Amino acid sequence: MEAYLDNSATTRAYPEVADIVKQVMLGDYGNPSSMHMKGVEAEKYIKDAKQTIASSLKCKPENILFTSGGTESDNLALIGTAETMKRRGKHIITTQIEHPAVLETCEFLSKEGYEITYLPVDKDGVVSLDALKSALRPDTILVSIMHVNNEIGAVQPIEEIGQILSDNAPDVIFHTDAVQGYGKIRLIPKKCHVDLLSVSGHKIHGPKGVGFLYMSDRVRLRPIIFGGGQQKGLRSGTENVPGIAGLAEAVKITMANLDEDMPRLSELKRVAAERLSSIEGVSLNGYRDGNSAPNILSISIEDVRAEVMLHALEDKGIYVSSGSACASNKPAISATLKAIGIDNKLLDSTIRISMSHYTSAEEIEYACECIEQTIPALRKYVRK
Amino acid sequence: MEAYLDNSATTRAYPEVADIVKQVMLGDYGNPSSMHMKGVEAEKYIKDAKQTIASSLKCKPENILFTSGGTESDNLALIGTAETMKRRGKHIITTQIEHPAVLETCEFLSKEGYEITYLPVDKDGVVSLDALKSALRPDTILVSIMHVNNEIGAVQPIEEIGQILSDNAPDVIFHTDAVQGYGKIRLIPKKCHVDLLSVSGHKIHGPKGVGFLYMSDRVRLRPIIFGGGQQKGLRSGTENVPGIAGLAEAVKITMANLDEDMPRLSELKRVAAERLSSIEGVSLNGYRDGNSAPNILSISIEDVRAEVMLHALEDKGIYVSSGSACASNKPAISATLKAIGIDNKLLDSTIRISMSHYTSAEEIEYACECIEQTIPALRKYVRK
Repeated sequence: MEAYLDNSATTRAYPEVADIVKQVMLGDYGNPSSMHMKGVEAEKYIKDAKQTIASSLKCKPENILFTSGGTESDNLALIGTAETMKRRGKHIITTQIEHPAVLETCEFLSKEGYEITYLPVDKDGVVSLDALKSALRPDTILVSIMHVNNEIGAVQPIEEIGQILSDNAPDVIFHTDAVQGYGKIRLIPKKCHVDLLSVSGHKIHGPKGVGFLYMSDRVRLRPIIFGGGQQKGLRSGTENVPGIAGLAEAVKITMANLDEDMPRLSELKRVAAERLSSIEGVSLNGYRDGNSAPNILSISIEDVRAEVMLHALEDKGIYVSSGSACASNKPAISATLKAIGIDNKLLDSTIRISMSHYTSAEEIEYACECIEQTIPALRKYVRK
Repeated sequence: MEAYLDNSATTRAYPEVADIVKQVMLGDYGNPSSMHMKGVEAEKYIKDAKQTIASSLKCKPENILFTSGGTESDNLALIGTAETMKRRGKHIITTQIEHPAVLETCEFLSKEGYEITYLPVDKDGVVSLDALKSALRPDTILVSIMHVNNEIGAVQPIEEIGQILSDNAPDVIFHTDAVQGYGKIRLIPKKCHVDLLSVSGHKIHGPKGVGFLYMSDRVRLRPIIFGGGQQKGLRSGTENVPGIAGLAEAVKITMANLDEDMPRLSELKRVAAERLSSIEGVSLNGYRDGNSAPNILSISIEDVRAEVMLHALEDKGIYVSSGSACASNKPAISATLKAIGIDNKLLDSTIRISMSHYTSAEEIEYACECIEQTIPALRKYVRK
């Protein structure tokens, strides 16, 4: 049996997505900037894709900007806003548990003279609203708080945060990295006073190399990539039409499946969480009585190195992640796990099981069984 | 009959390219950062792609960095070099006829305090080597000169330029935008003392949304996109594995076809140039006795507006471009045509015919015939 349970790292594309990508590459391959029919046809895919995505966020098509993925969306949101607003102030608020696409961009901005406040989170990985309120300053220009944490699935109170900003600092731009939340937990930017929202295609069974950034009407960004002036000058470069068409198809299917998929995954997660946490020395991260992302389950296993467990499961056809895949090439300590204050000895003993539309109850059952069986064997070598 | 003659704007993907993109999306969909087999399999596509591309440039796989396309490659090359070398100097040399991805990035850098020298070109669109020599200063850090001009097909003397830099200013980084040259005219970066070379997938029958940047061993770049540290930290963001695999496939096929395709297209161009330039009031741009890109033919037609001609040809199933497609959404005057000094009244009367592997002699014959027939009809309304 094979169980791909690393869907927060990336997902298998829907067949319909791959089909449309192929069709556009071979048939409707025009350059949207071309003035002839081939260009107009290509442009139509972009227009339709914006419409599809806008429906999912209850916004206008003009609020959608296509990028090369979640990382570029985050970079454009942060750097673009910072550069536009630097005359007003240079203070940015984010959290300790953001994805590296936000954390590293903040690190860059701090070298450029911006001041960054990193909000702490509680033991379940949720940011404190009081800490946010206290951090706000007259020179704060931007708040960037992720929707769903990629490592433990903690869900941030985006609506409450938006309300606080709207009440206390209405000029502050609010960005949320929704790469792990979009398509799992509905979020309407306008309702939540969100100005910028980043999404990646390949986390929702869409193509890699494409994503989008939602921008509210009041947002002004300085581009980070310059050139032919595509997308109103905000993101130059020939639009990735096949990727955009594939992304829209993925959005369509994901949104149609959401209300069925998520309760189902939530239940699979509940069962797995109960079963695994009953094993001695196994603890759940960011679980918060189940009030976390329905598709992500993070567990720490005392006296078992995550990497060893990962490969033991791999031998049985089960693919999980140790820490966050996006950072797993550099074996750094997870900022998220440190921020939630898990025991030092567990930092290196944490695995993430992440599910998707394609995940079945049988796969989760099988994975739990294998984890249960593997733990004692792996502990033999560690425990004296 | 249909004749797609706008291949410098974009090309139809090779079927093999679309097939591999689809296969990777559905089968080998892992995240290269993942530590399990699915990640390793995905990583292998990247490794193989680097090898394929490196062979085409006689360089090492480590010299290849994947980007979201030619525009990002140009931006990273210019901004990345400028930021790395700004302590040494802030002077950059480029030409008046670069693609907007270079010109607009230079414009951005000039606002950031860099000084840009724009070299003029002669009537055929070729940069003067003496002008380059005179422009070099002790604080020059970067020279960016395109390989093949996208509007008129003029080929720049990259090898001579590289020699001049190597002899006179060995510390200066040499970038060439080879988006229109790669796959048409062989260029070995090392032989030409080129440090940075930008390529786009969709100009060589590869996917849109992917490209690469060749970087010589001595180049150090400050990234322009920050995050998970992929590609040695130079370009964060999950790699577009299907796109990269498709790009490599396109490179393989394009390079295998080059020695057959280019002489054939060169001959088609010669015949068309001869035939069209014999029409009264029709002139060739950047032709230079045929010593220009084999696939691009730019003609100016007195008393015929390019846009009108474009749509007249479109009615007959022929797709050409007026000016450069990458800039055609903003109806600005072409910097290239101005730089080669064509008559003011011809600025708006210039069309570009651009060919590819898929272009047949019949298509060119048909296009020439239609242009011949259309000119008198269109002139009727203009000439009194």
